[in-house]
Amino acid sequence: MTLTEQITRLGRQAREASRALAQLTTAQKSACLLAMADAIESDRAPIEQANHLDMEAAAETGLSAAMLDRLKLDDKRIADMARGVREVAALPDPVGRILDERTRPNGLRLQKISTPIGVVVIIYESRPNVTADAASLCFKSGNAVILRGGKEALRSNQAIAHFMIAAAARQLPAFPAHCIQIVPTTEREAVRELLSLTQYVDLCMPRGGEGLIRAVTEVSKVPVIKHFKGVCHVFVDADADLKMAEEIAFNAKCQRPAVCNAMETLLVDRAVAPSFLPLIGRRLQARRVELRADEASRQILQAGLAAGGVLKTASEQDYFTEYNDCILNVRVVDGVGQAIDHINHYGSAHSDSIVTANETHAREFLARVDSAAVYWNASTRFTDGAEFGMGAEIGISTDKIGARGPMGLEELTSYKWLGFGNGQLRT
Amino acid sequence: MTLTEQITRLGRQAREASRALAQLTTAQKSACLLAMADAIESDRAPIEQANHLDMEAAAETGLSAAMLDRLKLDDKRIADMARGVREVAALPDPVGRILDERTRPNGLRLQKISTPIGVVVIIYESRPNVTADAASLCFKSGNAVILRGGKEALRSNQAIAHFMIAAAARQLPAFPAHCIQIVPTTEREAVRELLSLTQYVDLCMPRGGEGLIRAVTEVSKVPVIKHFKGVCHVFVDADADLKMAEEIAFNAKCQRPAVCNAMETLLVDRAVAPSFLPLIGRRLQARRVELRADEASRQILQAGLAAGGVLKTASEQDYFTEYNDCILNVRVVDGVGQAIDHINHYGSAHSDSIVTANETHAREFLARVDSAAVYWNASTRFTDGAEFGMGAEIGISTDKIGARGPMGLEELTSYKWLGFGNGQLRT
Repeated sequence: MTLTEQITRLGRQAREASRALAQLTTAQKSACLLAMADAIESDRAPIEQANHLDMEAAAETGLSAAMLDRLKLDDKRIADMARGVREVAALPDPVGRILDERTRPNGLRLQKISTPIGVVVIIYESRPNVTADAASLCFKSGNAVILRGGKEALRSNQAIAHFMIAAAARQLPAFPAHCIQIVPTTEREAVRELLSLTQYVDLCMPRGGEGLIRAVTEVSKVPVIKHFKGVCHVFVDADADLKMAEEIAFNAKCQRPAVCNAMETLLVDRAVAPSFLPLIGRRLQARRVELRADEASRQILQAGLAAGGVLKTASEQDYFTEYNDCILNVRVVDGVGQAIDHINHYGSAHSDSIVTANETHAREFLARVDSAAVYWNASTRFTDGAEFGMGAEIGISTDKIGARGPMGLEELTSYKWLGFGNGQLRT
Repeated sequence: MTLTEQITRLGRQAREASRALAQLTTAQKSACLLAMADAIESDRAPIEQANHLDMEAAAETGLSAAMLDRLKLDDKRIADMARGVREVAALPDPVGRILDERTRPNGLRLQKISTPIGVVVIIYESRPNVTADAASLCFKSGNAVILRGGKEALRSNQAIAHFMIAAAARQLPAFPAHCIQIVPTTEREAVRELLSLTQYVDLCMPRGGEGLIRAVTEVSKVPVIKHFKGVCHVFVDADADLKMAEEIAFNAKCQRPAVCNAMETLLVDRAVAPSFLPLIGRRLQARRVELRADEASRQILQAGLAAGGVLKTASEQDYFTEYNDCILNVRVVDGVGQAIDHINHYGSAHSDSIVTANETHAREFLARVDSAAVYWNASTRFTDGAEFGMGAEIGISTDKIGARGPMGLEELTSYKWLGFGNGQLRT
């Protein structure tokens, strides 16, 4: 069988499985998910064995220690995977919600109801826990999924999927086994083949760095929901409570610097820069945050620079950069208008916050910043499925077609219109 | 200026205009739209003059009479365009709707509100009235639009856009003139350039035949909402009221055969085929509908064939075909399950209907047919923005990401999350 035939078969099987999956009841899906979670724990030994083989092979190819750590599955990580699947089982079923209802003058009753999307492809990098995570979210939302993980994790991913599927099939004889499939080859060309199957694949969601996302977008013929990067901002307005601003800025940068909703650039109104910047500067330096400042903020920051504090000049490229690290751009702006323009130009339409007591400024910021999440007096770090009350999350979209912002189960659905008539004809 | 520079400039101007447009009030947008509608009528003479030049040039290139008719603008068509724009002005503003609202345990209040998408590209074929139509719908929904019409209609499209923009700018000094732009060249390569501008263009909506849609999908790097084709079905169940079935099938095929929601294939349960097919067959033949039948239905239809009635054998390819014409496939199936399988395999996920008095069969059909609109005892012809109560419509989507089915103003919006806090930090 050629690669094309092999991948096409995956797509066709997924489409067929999606038809059967869409008809399962909520109770059937939950029972399957609980069985899958139990299997992840009870079949821990063979899963860890497969992972061990992946780890050995990866170590031989010289994979970095950090990457090896991401690849590793131990008892704790396996327990976490199982717990994640149980949490998905407990969430409300996102399929079959009535989104709209109307009766037309001719008596035709229309109902807009949520449906599964159909067949979803998830492309991700090394962490094998994504396999259980993505599979359970897609299953609960009635979508057949084709998973393409990192090449170094293939055995681990296959083992996880195998035991999840086997457990569900024991639980429910009607379980459509092809609703969870792992691309069985590490050939790069397989991705291009997969993303050409417009007749079978409804959506691709890449999860990973900007390079992966761009590569997927470049070749895909199917719709892609993207999360390019998180270049997030906090703007400290002239009318900000400076203590609140300090706490929010510190939280947005330092609470977890490596994630997409962490702040990368701090914008400060010129009026409060002399009083605010020394406060936050000292605090960030104490946490070893490197500052990259524009000329105006550099002059202020320099005066109060502690020994060992790193203060550089920000380049234009820095303003576009997602550091995911203890580095922060700092820029002085002239008012809320310039802050908004900076964010819409350099940002990634992810999460941005204004700190101010001035409602007019806040309303302007909320209205004009064109990002998935815009905050007034809160940290950017809240953009997250769990924090938004969605339960688990499959990703955060920086797109505007389909889902935007955190994507939970509801964001994994489409809809259809049902028309209930008694013989209505178009005149 | 190279073509790339020229097209990039269109994109950049559209993005800038979209920022300004998103801030206009409903009243400002309505006033602009009414001024545009007035201008279409009062500047009728130069618009018709531009159209006359297009018609002359098109006639010289040997364009068919049918195509020339589609290109032509006369007083009636211009009045219709103006009326369409006034209707859009009168519709509710789709931007700023509160789609969801929740307060989290930490006191953070979240609001999900509808926003414009941003910059939309519309690619269409010859009819110049689409220019006014698409421009007004995009304007009302706060989207900057880049219009690429048929090459033979360039002067007409430019004239329509010019007078709409000039009128709006007189009405409102803050009107962002680049929110409506016509691609100023007929070069084919311009489309590829336009659909590569991922930093400026948020969405492309091609309107036209399947060939156009496939060509756009093939080259586009930006999301495309597609309406491939309408291969719509009516299934006459064993428990159908046969008189109702006859009326619905006749309406679905004959009320307007050239449109996408007209029926292309009639499926009939074997149990009622002998009684139903002769009735509908005679009625369709009287309207000169060519029948392409499978073996079982051919045998029944042949007996009652009137003189001059055309009865052929359906090929497998016929079941995939959108005729947009007085041709109908007829097939006998064994029950609702086989009908559903036929529709999900050969259909285009557009509009399908079951006629039955049996609620179990109807519920199964509604649940399992994977189409944008699924009807019970009603004609497929209702899939339409106006019939759904959406007002005007920019198209019908057969996609599952973003809008599905008829697309009115609401379907031309995205959303963002606003977070209202009082100093919330992530812990």
